[in-house]
Amino acid sequence: MTDVVDRTGGTGRTAATKAGNAAGTPPRAKALSAGSRVSGQPGARPAVDVAALGEQLLGKWADARRHARTLAANPALHKTEGLTHTDHRARTFGQLKLLVDNNAVHRAFPAELGGANDHGGNIAGFEELVTADPSLQIKAGVQWGLFGSAVMHLGTAEHHAKWLPGIMSLEIPGCFAMTETGHGSDVASIATTATYDDATEEFVIHTPFRAAWKDYIGNAAIDGLGAVVFAQLVTQGVNHGVHAFYVELRDPETKQFRPGIGGEDDGVKGGLNGIDNGRLHFSNVRIPRTNLLNRYGDVAADGTYSSPIASPGRRFFTMLGTLVQGRVSLDGAAVAASKIALAAAIRYATERRQFNASSHTEEEVLLDYQRHQRRLFTRLATTYAAGFAHEQLLQKFDDVFSGAHDTDADRQDLETLAAALKPLSTWHALDTLQECREACGGAGFLVENRFASLRADLDVYVTFEGDNTVLLQLVAKRLLADYAKEFRNVDFGVLARYVVTQATGVAIHRTGLRQVAQFVADTGSVQKAAIALRDEEGQRALLTDRVQTMVADVGAALKGANKLPVDKGAALFNQHQNELIDAAQAHAELLQWEAFTEALGEVQDPGTKVVLTWLRDLFGLSLIEKNLSWYLMNGRLSMQRARTVGDYINRLLVKIRPHALDLVDAFGYGDEHVRAAIATGAEKTRQDEARAHYRAQRASGSAPIDEKSLLARKAAGPKSRQG
Amino acid sequence: MTDVVDRTGGTGRTAATKAGNAAGTPPRAKALSAGSRVSGQPGARPAVDVAALGEQLLGKWADARRHARTLAANPALHKTEGLTHTDHRARTFGQLKLLVDNNAVHRAFPAELGGANDHGGNIAGFEELVTADPSLQIKAGVQWGLFGSAVMHLGTAEHHAKWLPGIMSLEIPGCFAMTETGHGSDVASIATTATYDDATEEFVIHTPFRAAWKDYIGNAAIDGLGAVVFAQLVTQGVNHGVHAFYVELRDPETKQFRPGIGGEDDGVKGGLNGIDNGRLHFSNVRIPRTNLLNRYGDVAADGTYSSPIASPGRRFFTMLGTLVQGRVSLDGAAVAASKIALAAAIRYATERRQFNASSHTEEEVLLDYQRHQRRLFTRLATTYAAGFAHEQLLQKFDDVFSGAHDTDADRQDLETLAAALKPLSTWHALDTLQECREACGGAGFLVENRFASLRADLDVYVTFEGDNTVLLQLVAKRLLADYAKEFRNVDFGVLARYVVTQATGVAIHRTGLRQVAQFVADTGSVQKAAIALRDEEGQRALLTDRVQTMVADVGAALKGANKLPVDKGAALFNQHQNELIDAAQAHAELLQWEAFTEALGEVQDPGTKVVLTWLRDLFGLSLIEKNLSWYLMNGRLSMQRARTVGDYINRLLVKIRPHALDLVDAFGYGDEHVRAAIATGAEKTRQDEARAHYRAQRASGSAPIDEKSLLARKAAGPKSRQG
Repeated sequence: MTDVVDRTGGTGRTAATKAGNAAGTPPRAKALSAGSRVSGQPGARPAVDVAALGEQLLGKWADARRHARTLAANPALHKTEGLTHTDHRARTFGQLKLLVDNNAVHRAFPAELGGANDHGGNIAGFEELVTADPSLQIKAGVQWGLFGSAVMHLGTAEHHAKWLPGIMSLEIPGCFAMTETGHGSDVASIATTATYDDATEEFVIHTPFRAAWKDYIGNAAIDGLGAVVFAQLVTQGVNHGVHAFYVELRDPETKQFRPGIGGEDDGVKGGLNGIDNGRLHFSNVRIPRTNLLNRYGDVAADGTYSSPIASPGRRFFTMLGTLVQGRVSLDGAAVAASKIALAAAIRYATERRQFNASSHTEEEVLLDYQRHQRRLFTRLATTYAAGFAHEQLLQKFDDVFSGAHDTDADRQDLETLAAALKPLSTWHALDTLQECREACGGAGFLVENRFASLRADLDVYVTFEGDNTVLLQLVAKRLLADYAKEFRNVDFGVLARYVVTQATGVAIHRTGLRQVAQFVADTGSVQKAAIALRDEEGQRALLTDRVQTMVADVGAALKGANKLPVDKGAALFNQHQNELIDAAQAHAELLQWEAFTEALGEVQDPGTKVVLTWLRDLFGLSLIEKNLSWYLMNGRLSMQRARTVGDYINRLLVKIRPHALDLVDAFGYGDEHVRAAIATGAEKTRQDEARAHYRAQRASGSAPIDEKSLLARKAAGPKSRQG
Repeated sequence: MTDVVDRTGGTGRTAATKAGNAAGTPPRAKALSAGSRVSGQPGARPAVDVAALGEQLLGKWADARRHARTLAANPALHKTEGLTHTDHRARTFGQLKLLVDNNAVHRAFPAELGGANDHGGNIAGFEELVTADPSLQIKAGVQWGLFGSAVMHLGTAEHHAKWLPGIMSLEIPGCFAMTETGHGSDVASIATTATYDDATEEFVIHTPFRAAWKDYIGNAAIDGLGAVVFAQLVTQGVNHGVHAFYVELRDPETKQFRPGIGGEDDGVKGGLNGIDNGRLHFSNVRIPRTNLLNRYGDVAADGTYSSPIASPGRRFFTMLGTLVQGRVSLDGAAVAASKIALAAAIRYATERRQFNASSHTEEEVLLDYQRHQRRLFTRLATTYAAGFAHEQLLQKFDDVFSGAHDTDADRQDLETLAAALKPLSTWHALDTLQECREACGGAGFLVENRFASLRADLDVYVTFEGDNTVLLQLVAKRLLADYAKEFRNVDFGVLARYVVTQATGVAIHRTGLRQVAQFVADTGSVQKAAIALRDEEGQRALLTDRVQTMVADVGAALKGANKLPVDKGAALFNQHQNELIDAAQAHAELLQWEAFTEALGEVQDPGTKVVLTWLRDLFGLSLIEKNLSWYLMNGRLSMQRARTVGDYINRLLVKIRPHALDLVDAFGYGDEHVRAAIATGAEKTRQDEARAHYRAQRASGSAPIDEKSLLARKAAGPKSRQG
């Protein structure tokens, strides 16, 4: 508890949480509004304005988030643990209907069909569903975000009129049948074919071999009646590349596959067992010509192919562009899950004591231990950074999908941003869920405390909708391209400086002067040496410099690779694959840091700003600490300055400690979202009971004497006689 | 595949595996025995003698491992995925009976009761059960390793005669009721009391409040008829500390709790759902005086307490000493699970191609990618290191428990060694299972491929039988104590050198001369600078120096902490908690590296020795890379030398690549242990089918023309006319 709460006589979290949290109002907001006023006073310890910070965290689509959180608080939407995958699937399907009834999933669809053309709000609301059950979220994502979205974005008016109403109402549950067993992230190479037959004006959908079966397809094992099937479009002997086709999978009455279609159940998964993933295959299945979703490519009755996009590559990129919303929403959902985990683990850590409540002195709570702070606060800082970065991504996404800013360059920037952020946030969620689970010990392993369940469900977020490692390579490719472009327009001076730097190594790197200056400054005290590190510009310079240098280093190493024979070029590239991925990650981390820093600029309350700045510094310094060897061996930090990083992080932990609860309360999730038995105050109740017992025992004189004390007394006896 | 297999015309793994692997014979052993002879010839590429290496990995208790592996190959013992926790529990209980029938779990019990007094062999066999189902392993561990073992080690002859036969036969399923909700790792503070009543010659077992409920207790929710309950022994008004009592929990006929006993089901867990963990509480439950397991402390009929161990602290330590076997076995089980995961992921990576099998050039398999090699080979190296370290731990354990070397010092060394290795290997198993799951993409998430299932089950290994973070602090405490002891006997010269070093900082550290020499050497080529790093002594010096320096640094910082008031001392300690834990981890990593290096000394086959040395170097260099910032900022490595570490690791990956399959084959697990659908050769079969399809299509002239090629041809047309 912070000073502020004590001063205002706040009643603590539980009541406030129960009072106004279902709709996303940050708990304790009322209790804190008075207290937060003092936070700017000189000399006062800074305090977090939880209500205002909570509002900022809700972001631009606060209303959509509030609506979704109210919905997600409904026990009917919560995951029931311990179900078989069969029962879980049935429950999740039923929950989708509830979403429809509550108008929760149609925001992105056209207004004329009952939607709201609201792309950002749609994703924001969708992300919040992860707090109810990730299976529900992803099954909804399959139905409306992938299947429905493909019909909407790749189809034309006739398709919309024909299928969207049924998709929106869940009358037609369906599949997004893209991935094949033989090809994961490499969509361009799928082997399913759609061959046009002008005699019957039909496409023939066909799976030529086992590796071409569609695999991991949500709704495929049981529920899917329809499907958007991705296949190589072949007409008049020419393969025009991957296109999307609407296929009726099952008879709506009998739920049996239609002739020529077959499949398999993917069975039990590591998580997300509310979704019936499965495999599909097609044996010369005939569909009408008009079932081609023909917005970006069409086949006339006579078999003539036409497309508004001449380049097959650009056409493919455009058609796959709708996939980005999956990545955007996983980024946000991963942040939401991290928040839930930290809210539970940090609350528990403020109550749980490491040692016996019977001790005569009041033992410290877990959160007072340095290691525990390190484990949780560094992840709290990263969660804030990932959250702010996500908000920027979501705005970029809305800009593009609303058409406000929808150039090719905008779309490419959006793709790159999503490819950079989704890997970091999804890996971070797994890391945070696991660390929180471990930080709660054996209790953390019980499903009643959510961590293990959420972690199992979110596991696949790191490889689906784009494998994280593959996405980071896309980012790296873009960074290299930008780097090459920069060189094309570079003046001689810059180039020369670059060449000189490369030739003579790190010692006279272009930041060489700063480096020398730093060595001089470092002759002062450790305290003084830390100033630049905790300075915003110091952090930015270090983080930016690392990205630029890493990209430039790989760029230089790969120079001319594209002029080599394909295999030699690939081999050279492969020799730098690890560095490339590291560079992409460094770039994404910088984006997160920049987003955090920009968000700081929007904070009005001075106390909140102070605390959030500590948190941003913790994030920045943690990044620098993680890559400290790079800064050292590239001459960016002196040995002496590097040695201050750890200490400075430790001091930040101590500063953040009194505000930890406020910082998780600002997430705005109530007990009905966190739903962790250990984060309900039960631990404190148990300790109070234990203390009362020992107090009563001592008062009554019935407490047994400890053998150790007895021995000590006996030992002291003779000695005192000797003395 | 290695050259050797090709040369000898080996039939590949599948056949050999099926042939002789159930009993732990390394697959392909026969095919390789001829080939391995050439490995020592000059000029020949080194080859691994898989059979000999497999034999070495089986270790001292190879027969017990083979016996257990044969058993674990039995489908009746395998985990059935997708069961409810209720059904899984029933299945696991049934499997325990199978273990009894197969004489798999009695090796450690006294010979006169049908056991074999074989402690090392017992643990070795137990560890292998993890490959069948971790729930089976841990449930067996609860019954015989904890419950039975407590009766054996803490009880006396009468207890053995009375209860061990029923425990061994599973007639009495039972609990090891130590942990309480309010106290995790802090056993000394448990609050359950056993108060002696001399009027009736009974102990009264009592739970004074909710926090004192026994919690997370295996067999407690359903199956437990008996229990060893740990409670504070109070007699004649004195608390003699924690002792163990035999309590009949449930009526064997009705399976209902006996009067005064109650409990709760812990419900669904993140994994290990074959075990019925639960809570227990006792309301003035009376048991006969003779139910005190009285080997280390007894109460006479009149209530007089006596113990062969005068010191309460030492008595407590001795009684808890049997717990170490849990840590030892988890260490081994974690290594076994890591091996299973790597065997599956590495095999798949040798077959799976990143791009379309329809490409005209043969694409590289996943394992040819640098990042993929980094992800899997670094973990392969650590698994070898952890395996060799475990074998040393197991021998130490057997020495102590067999009585061969069973001094107090031996027991303390065993405790420290287990506390150091168990955290590293269990965290490593989770990390490896996750990385392997991700390296197999979406397929890795399907439970048919085991990773997610094993990971969920092994999750709790990092916090039970001693929370990893707590265990590392125990190690740190021991390191500090040893450090202090060293100072007691130190001559003035050493002390003076130490003081000088501390006063003037890292620059003239006692390895200062070497540091200067290194700077000189570094003026040579990068190639030359790497020599010391790949040198065994170089790695040892770096790893050892880091541990010593870290401990010395913290030791110096904490000097006099024990003379401060308790709270001030604790605060000072807390300020260095993070460093302390890091130092303990560095120490444990050094132990693993030393174990790997010692094992290298036992390798006879020259080719195997070469390859394993690369793997050891990869392990050592990975540790140095992970902590590179420490080496740099403490002046142990120059910038230039540090920059060679990454490159050297990359070169090792390339060298190890041809031997990757041999290195996992040497683990000796067959398909019946790995049981991953993707590691059965199915991927290769699918690719062969796809290739055959495209080949036939091209041959028949029915292959469609690619639109891109068509455009390229059209574009080339006019140009050629222009030219």
